[in-house]
Amino acid sequence: MPISSTHIFVQTTGGTDIVDLTPQIQMQVKKSPVKNGAVTLFIPGSTASLTTIEFESGAVSDLKNAIGKIAPEDGHYDHNERWGDGNGYAHVRAAMMGPSLHVPIVEGKMTLGTWQQIVLLDFDNRPRDRSIVVQISGE
Amino acid sequence: MPISSTHIFVQTTGGTDIVDLTPQIQMQVKKSPVKNGAVTLFIPGSTASLTTIEFESGAVSDLKNAIGKIAPEDGHYDHNERWGDGNGYAHVRAAMMGPSLHVPIVEGKMTLGTWQQIVLLDFDNRPRDRSIVVQISGE
Amino acid sequence: MPISSTHIFVQTTGGTDIVDLTPQIQMQVKKSPVKNGAVTLFIPGSTASLTTIEFESGAVSDLKNAIGKIAPEDGHYDHNERWGDGNGYAHVRAAMMGPSLHVPIVEGKMTLGTWQQIVLLDFDNRPRDRSIVVQISGE
Repeated sequence: MPISSTHIFVQTTGGTDIVDLTPQIQMQVKKSPVKNGAVTLFIPGSTASLTTIEFESGAVSDLKNAIGKIAPEDGHYDHNERWGDGNGYAHVRAAMMGPSLHVPIVEGKMTLGTWQQIVLLDFDNRPRDRSIVVQISGE
Repeated sequence: MPISSTHIFVQTTGGTDIVDLTPQIQMQVKKSPVKNGAVTLFIPGSTASLTTIEFESGAVSDLKNAIGKIAPEDGHYDHNERWGDGNGYAHVRAAMMGPSLHVPIVEGKMTLGTWQQIVLLDFDNRPRDRSIVVQISGE
Repeated sequence: MPISSTHIFVQTTGGTDIVDLTPQIQMQVKKSPVKNGAVTLFIPGSTASLTTIEFESGAVSDLKNAIGKIAPEDGHYDHNERWGDGNGYAHVRAAMMGPSLHVPIVEGKMTLGTWQQIVLLDFDNRPRDRSIVVQISGE
């Protein structure tokens, strides 16, 4: 059972940038010999997350609004008091949304719905160079 | 290391229907030759999620209430403005709760707690035919 | 492809105790022959979760506060009405944060960020003996 790990590199803009990773991941799956298996995605870092959503501007902005109510940028954060970097809200959001995602591969394709895309959510308050781990395993 | 993928089919009622999938998944694990491995569960689509909960009516209704406060059905959603399908709240909830779940199999059994069930949360505002991917891998 | 399952045991204090599991998991990864693969973590039980966070007291307390707003300890819970155990809030939090986590192993190391730790969140309202499943697979 082969297992291969690569990276996807993304430059984000800061301020909860939500980026569609699906085309790049699909390309990795296509290049892989795995026909039956899974893609594991993981974002190193503590101010970003991975999830799936219908990637259209309405749903993306609705998600931003809902997360913004749970952990507002201008709220009080003990993290900011201690470190002064102003991204306390980003740590809370990332811990709640989680860093990993697992998508099965069946007959050479990810089992995503038609309107379901894989997205990176970068909550940090400044542009970042992100590197997402893409691990494909199976047979 | 064998890897097998099947589906579980569920008809949901609309309006955040929460359905216990545990018996059907346990049956798949029992039928599988895998004694040491994992079950990967994935829900294709962008208005439903998977998680675990003690499946008793109190906890299930408490979870519905909490999610309903984060993304109320009658809130304003840009998705609804653009597409007019009225399920903007469902997209937000699904992206926050996530589409995948991973449960280890040890000595032929899933490592669930005694009061821990695997559930589908279908947030959509109409009945849906859902197909959950159940992938079992291991040895 | 070897696959091994062990447990980490943790005694928690009750009241949303957040515990850094990273050193113990790193030790398991170091002992394993797997150089390219993944660690699957799973918490049996319906009142605890796993995620990653920068494990410093500020971010940890910020996360507790945000979760406490979504499902306050002293809110009304149908679960409490039915069972009288007063931990309805813990069931809601655990279902929202999820029981599983998946971290790739590349060149013998987990792909965590420098300031990213793996944590157990025990939401229960009393001290608990927790046993986290640590499954390492790969080559």
